[in-house]
Amino acid sequence: MSKKWVYLFKEGSASQKDLLGGKGANLAEMTKIGMPVPQGFTVTTEACTEFYQQGEKLTEAIIKQIKDSMKSLEEETGKKFGDPENPLLVSVRSGAKISMPGMMDTILNLGLNDETVEGVAKNTGNLRFAYDSYRRFIQMFGDVVSEVPKYLFDNALDRKKEENGYTLDTELTAEDLKELTEEFKEIYKKEIKEDFPVDPEKQLLMAVEAVFKSWNNPRAITYRNLYDIPHNIGTAVNVQSMVFGNMGDTSGTGVAFTRNPSTGEKKVFGEFLINAQGEDVVAGIRTPLSIDKLKEIMPEIYEEFINTAHTLEKHYKDMQDIEFTIEQGKLYMLQTRSGKRTAEAALRIAVELYEEGLISKEEAVMRVDPKSLDQLLHPKFDEVELKKTTPIAKGLPASPGAATGKIYFTAEDAVAAAINGEDVILVRKETSPEDIEGMNMAKGILTSRGGMTSHAAVVARGMGKCCVAGCESAIVDERNKTMTVNKEVFREGDSISLDGNTGNVYKGILKTVEANISGNFEKLMTWADEFRRLGIRTNADTPRDAAEAVKFGAEGIGLCRTEHMFFEESRIFSVRKMIISDNREQREKALAEILPMQKNDFKGIFKVMGERPVTIRLLDPPLHEFLPTDEDDIKELAEDMNVPLDELKGKINSLHEFNPMLGHRGCRLAISFPEIAKMQTRAIIEAAIEVSKEENINVVPEIMVPLVGKKEELEILRNLIIETAEEIKKDMNSDIDYLVGTMVEIPRACLTADEVAEYADFFSFGTNDLTQMTFGYSRDDAGKFLEDYKEAGILEQDPFASIDQEGVGKLVETAVKLGKGAKDNLHLGVCGEHGGDPASIEFFHRTGLDYVSCSPFRVPVARLAAAQAAIINKDK
Amino acid sequence: MSKKWVYLFKEGSASQKDLLGGKGANLAEMTKIGMPVPQGFTVTTEACTEFYQQGEKLTEAIIKQIKDSMKSLEEETGKKFGDPENPLLVSVRSGAKISMPGMMDTILNLGLNDETVEGVAKNTGNLRFAYDSYRRFIQMFGDVVSEVPKYLFDNALDRKKEENGYTLDTELTAEDLKELTEEFKEIYKKEIKEDFPVDPEKQLLMAVEAVFKSWNNPRAITYRNLYDIPHNIGTAVNVQSMVFGNMGDTSGTGVAFTRNPSTGEKKVFGEFLINAQGEDVVAGIRTPLSIDKLKEIMPEIYEEFINTAHTLEKHYKDMQDIEFTIEQGKLYMLQTRSGKRTAEAALRIAVELYEEGLISKEEAVMRVDPKSLDQLLHPKFDEVELKKTTPIAKGLPASPGAATGKIYFTAEDAVAAAINGEDVILVRKETSPEDIEGMNMAKGILTSRGGMTSHAAVVARGMGKCCVAGCESAIVDERNKTMTVNKEVFREGDSISLDGNTGNVYKGILKTVEANISGNFEKLMTWADEFRRLGIRTNADTPRDAAEAVKFGAEGIGLCRTEHMFFEESRIFSVRKMIISDNREQREKALAEILPMQKNDFKGIFKVMGERPVTIRLLDPPLHEFLPTDEDDIKELAEDMNVPLDELKGKINSLHEFNPMLGHRGCRLAISFPEIAKMQTRAIIEAAIEVSKEENINVVPEIMVPLVGKKEELEILRNLIIETAEEIKKDMNSDIDYLVGTMVEIPRACLTADEVAEYADFFSFGTNDLTQMTFGYSRDDAGKFLEDYKEAGILEQDPFASIDQEGVGKLVETAVKLGKGAKDNLHLGVCGEHGGDPASIEFFHRTGLDYVSCSPFRVPVARLAAAQAAIINKDK
Repeated sequence: MSKKWVYLFKEGSASQKDLLGGKGANLAEMTKIGMPVPQGFTVTTEACTEFYQQGEKLTEAIIKQIKDSMKSLEEETGKKFGDPENPLLVSVRSGAKISMPGMMDTILNLGLNDETVEGVAKNTGNLRFAYDSYRRFIQMFGDVVSEVPKYLFDNALDRKKEENGYTLDTELTAEDLKELTEEFKEIYKKEIKEDFPVDPEKQLLMAVEAVFKSWNNPRAITYRNLYDIPHNIGTAVNVQSMVFGNMGDTSGTGVAFTRNPSTGEKKVFGEFLINAQGEDVVAGIRTPLSIDKLKEIMPEIYEEFINTAHTLEKHYKDMQDIEFTIEQGKLYMLQTRSGKRTAEAALRIAVELYEEGLISKEEAVMRVDPKSLDQLLHPKFDEVELKKTTPIAKGLPASPGAATGKIYFTAEDAVAAAINGEDVILVRKETSPEDIEGMNMAKGILTSRGGMTSHAAVVARGMGKCCVAGCESAIVDERNKTMTVNKEVFREGDSISLDGNTGNVYKGILKTVEANISGNFEKLMTWADEFRRLGIRTNADTPRDAAEAVKFGAEGIGLCRTEHMFFEESRIFSVRKMIISDNREQREKALAEILPMQKNDFKGIFKVMGERPVTIRLLDPPLHEFLPTDEDDIKELAEDMNVPLDELKGKINSLHEFNPMLGHRGCRLAISFPEIAKMQTRAIIEAAIEVSKEENINVVPEIMVPLVGKKEELEILRNLIIETAEEIKKDMNSDIDYLVGTMVEIPRACLTADEVAEYADFFSFGTNDLTQMTFGYSRDDAGKFLEDYKEAGILEQDPFASIDQEGVGKLVETAVKLGKGAKDNLHLGVCGEHGGDPASIEFFHRTGLDYVSCSPFRVPVARLAAAQAAIINKDK
Repeated sequence: MSKKWVYLFKEGSASQKDLLGGKGANLAEMTKIGMPVPQGFTVTTEACTEFYQQGEKLTEAIIKQIKDSMKSLEEETGKKFGDPENPLLVSVRSGAKISMPGMMDTILNLGLNDETVEGVAKNTGNLRFAYDSYRRFIQMFGDVVSEVPKYLFDNALDRKKEENGYTLDTELTAEDLKELTEEFKEIYKKEIKEDFPVDPEKQLLMAVEAVFKSWNNPRAITYRNLYDIPHNIGTAVNVQSMVFGNMGDTSGTGVAFTRNPSTGEKKVFGEFLINAQGEDVVAGIRTPLSIDKLKEIMPEIYEEFINTAHTLEKHYKDMQDIEFTIEQGKLYMLQTRSGKRTAEAALRIAVELYEEGLISKEEAVMRVDPKSLDQLLHPKFDEVELKKTTPIAKGLPASPGAATGKIYFTAEDAVAAAINGEDVILVRKETSPEDIEGMNMAKGILTSRGGMTSHAAVVARGMGKCCVAGCESAIVDERNKTMTVNKEVFREGDSISLDGNTGNVYKGILKTVEANISGNFEKLMTWADEFRRLGIRTNADTPRDAAEAVKFGAEGIGLCRTEHMFFEESRIFSVRKMIISDNREQREKALAEILPMQKNDFKGIFKVMGERPVTIRLLDPPLHEFLPTDEDDIKELAEDMNVPLDELKGKINSLHEFNPMLGHRGCRLAISFPEIAKMQTRAIIEAAIEVSKEENINVVPEIMVPLVGKKEELEILRNLIIETAEEIKKDMNSDIDYLVGTMVEIPRACLTADEVAEYADFFSFGTNDLTQMTFGYSRDDAGKFLEDYKEAGILEQDPFASIDQEGVGKLVETAVKLGKGAKDNLHLGVCGEHGGDPASIEFFHRTGLDYVSCSPFRVPVARLAAAQAAIINKDK
């Protein structure tokens, strides 16, 4: 028996994607489970390979099998190919294993010629429709099969409209269209030097050849190169009988979802039109009817459709997005696919599908996009109002949520207005640590500079507060307290609305809808927790943030930054005194003032976290960040501190750095000023001991040394911390445990992680800084070229948003391997922004970390992403 | 036969360091080759091990062999241990395989007691000397053998002086000293509860035990831990007969070099004193005589000494530093070792030793410290004058040489004064690219900030110009044009002198001596070239620097920075116009003005370099570096450019970066503004074609893309360069070759070097930036903590001066492996500051690079270091 080159839909199945292509396999599958699919057949991908091996020719065997399959199709449909009375028309489509733009897409109505067109006219009772289909077919065939320049057909059409004084295509009469078919055929002949093929069989074979040839057109090759698709797998060709929804009042067409894509409610949801084609539904000229109406108009069809929809959903085990056509009282399913849905719907559908027994718990967990959860936890704008409003500007969606309020341009003004009871939007060029209090009191933050990982973005996400960053079309003048957008000037007190999910900025106050977390959320989270291996911690600097994160399921704090505490108004004076000290004695005196306050910070956090682990990072930023930069502020500080202005300026000047990111910060501060690290250790250990006693629990603080690049740094500071801690334990008669570890964020630390591990109980990857140094990108400045880089195809995404697995990831892997090699029980986590990014979490799971840490509102995202990572990689 | 625990000097040799220790083996060796060495014996390291195995006891076998050896020694010397008439006195010294501070050093005059001291008095005719020796022996023995607190002896001595109203030890009479020996013995008895041992044999055995015990004292253990010396190899003990140079006019003592250590001249050079001990020569109370005088005083001894010196030099194949003593007309050699020498002498001695057939060419090449060559090529201060003068301040020796002149505080003032014929020292807080012209015209540069790799240091070394950097005690006020050192104010026009070899700064003008390069230099360099595998290129931006480097032996240019050319006064205006352009058209117009100037720059360099390779780096620094920062300058520029001041300020402001090192620079500029890279490519290719035609040679320029982190960057820019170059070649009817490669200076590029190599003909490691990013240190700011780091033992040396082989080096190795793996013929070099550092060069040799590139004056250093690297690693 000769090789099988062609499969009828009823002969194939979903498992044959290699041979039948994605589309062909899906049509076969629907046929197999008894769906009313317009029948047809698939010419295989192997036939495509054979076609090329024969020097771009269809072999006799293939041609024969195509013809035989056509015969089967005629029998099936009761129509005949080329029959003037009851002509069979088909569509011809390409269909590779992987869907691939750039290849030939579709030819409709193949089989039309001067004779069969009359048959169609008769059967539909619509001459105009028949000739419109015919002229479209010639045009499509001429263009995609024979490469007649498309504009020649378009010009002829335009001329025809001009001659008749029409403006719309729909004004063309049946007669006009009939004339046009003649003109189109002449154009074809003039260009191709051959008559337009009237023989349907010839049309079909030419179309099949054209599909095969399109596999190797330049666009398709480029696409395959781009997405690493092999060049030798070929495409299949699908030949399917046409059905028409516009054959009168017993015909129709529509689209439907098996469940409500907005809410997830289990009820078929959709719309349809009687006597119409698919494009009529989309075009919106006639108003479609709700699918419920079909019950009244065609009760039997309705019932069949609903049953079919349920069958499809059961078969594909997911909410389906279905296209259907009714041709003269007979229902046909044209397409089915998993339907797009809102986050809310995704959650409900996943949970309910599991509860209906359709999918497993694992599958339910896999069904929800972790990123979408973030939206669920924040308020959003009313959809209806949103549709009616045009944004005045667009920035980066830096932190989700919806915020409205009056704009203020300084942190001080924002705080004052907020205390006054106003809803405040803080508008800044960019924020700095000095603005923390203002950000905290504002409903939302808008900056004109900075990217997704700018200070504003990072802090806002940490606070779960809406933020639009890098909104460059908003020109912010902080001195004159104005924001100019498109020449319109907004002043202090004017109202705006920010959409943190889209980055849109609106004038005035839009209506917001509060976040609505259903029980499904809790259910899915619990299931996720059953699967994940990664622990989930949070980055939190205050008891309030910590409490919020615990509510969302955080199992500990992975990063508690101590510097934010330094900025509080009550203590910044002491901090500044400490910084401008001339010697250790002065510094220690100032530090002694800060000690009780820091201790109370830590006590507050320990009380919230109980026995959950809390990783506290020693002071990280360069000291100059705590000093004022504004001339007036410096003057005020000099007076407050009773220091000559020139001396203070000299001090500030001497602390200036060209590249503060690579400057005197992190553990470098602790090496130069060990008394700072000592004070912080004291605050942590005393707080842990006191809370342990007061609450009768075991607090085990984890002290983290930042920015280590050489083992000696950690060796020295570990000794200092242990010495200080042991002294306190002795004095306070306590035997609490504590850990000392390091933040791994310098490439050199990764490269020598075996040495660093000697002195570390844990590593916490600081992938923000690690990304900065591995790429040589400053987070604060990269905005200047990142857009150019995305446009040029150099970066697919912001490496600060999702970890660069090939480069930065290699360093993380190296560090894990070396660190674990040197110390088997080394505890490993990550506390950079990447800890809340699903793709990065999957990477961290594979790399063997023990936990990820992210901002409180990202905790659910991380829980779900960690579960998915575990499920995806469970066999590896 | 029982095991041999003790070796007479005449029984051992230099090869027995494991057994006899370094000192013992050397004494044996000198004995073996017939040197008149005071005889003695060595108790082996194995005896030390045995001592510990026996619970810190000397076995009978060891004691017996020591006694037997003592007998041999008595026979040899004709003296007897403990003989009141002709007593044998010995020294006892420790001597491990590796010289080790922390262990017991020396006990002299062992064998003295109340009887033998009289014999010494009689034989020397010097009662005072005898008792002084005796009281010193008791003191030394009490301290190091029996651990009597030293201060007890010192107190007694002081009391004695007080009682007699003496101020100096020398005022003590023989009688005083005799009384002191009694007092010392009482102190000993009181502390140790035993009499001071009078039996010389007992003294000896106690001393041997003390040496063995000192192997395990805490200081010795710490030292071994620090330098990874095994703890189980033990120490040997050397027992040697004492000789005295102070036994009258037929005795004497001296030190000598076998060649002149300042000039290298082949003539014994040294000094001596008649009737004196070694310490008298050192103390400088009496003026020693030149060794030539010995010929007149003791012609036979002189002849014997000269012959001995020659024999030692021949034996050790190097210039020797010798200590000798003449005891009653008999010459003894006490010590010989390779002598310290100046760079000039090292060079001459190495060359002459080879020419005398004493050492091989390889050995000659190994004998000269590459780092010392740098000094030879620069002027220095007159040694005599230098000794008389005290520096007013000390900075870092950033670039060698000696410079004197009047100080100026701005580049402009410096240029004006230099044009006026003055010798100028440019004094700045720190320099920036705007200062290039002023630096170029100055004789020397002094900065109060910045480290060894600050802008000033790097540029000055590139220019071969004297520079003292980071001189923090000089407070520079550029506005008021003053420099304050130790409260003394220096004003514009005041004279100072800079020593770039030491970092010293002097007031006024010191006398300088010009560099004097002898023919030996050329000889050694030629020999070095025979051994080295690494090519040596230079970093040069001007024809003048290029010519200088070629003179020093550079084989090509490894780094030609194009940005320095942008700062020249004639073109900076066009450059600024280009930068503040609002659109591509404006930018291209400004670039068109720069093109002919850049082309001429390259033509000048190509003409000097001929067919040698020239690697030209595309524009690297962020654009804001080219814009003025001073308010007045900005105003001037706005007027010059006819741009509103506010607009210009806005533009400058928008280019501001928080971390310019990690900002919009390097290839990122070329991605955002391809027209800049195009213009530079055009300038390079046109220049290469024109010079090729004019000079009838083949210029093959190498175009280097800086700061690549992702392969896509290089892919895009390589295409742009090739497209531009091919167009020009076609237009100019030329078929010249050119290469396109990249500077590997971003950690990510190293980690993905296999991908980057796809688009690179060559890699040139930019280890400056690579070090910055791998450590997370900003070169410009690291000065703030590098000193703290060195003090804390975290860094042994500045990682910008010598490559960090463990961290940064790992990335270089990774990149070499991946790059070569992907492209076998990938050409590899380094063009960072490390290219001129010998230790780094050895690393680059091992790593398999093809060449190093360094500043012109470092080229000879690099040639020699590369040769030494090849020799050291030749068997690997």
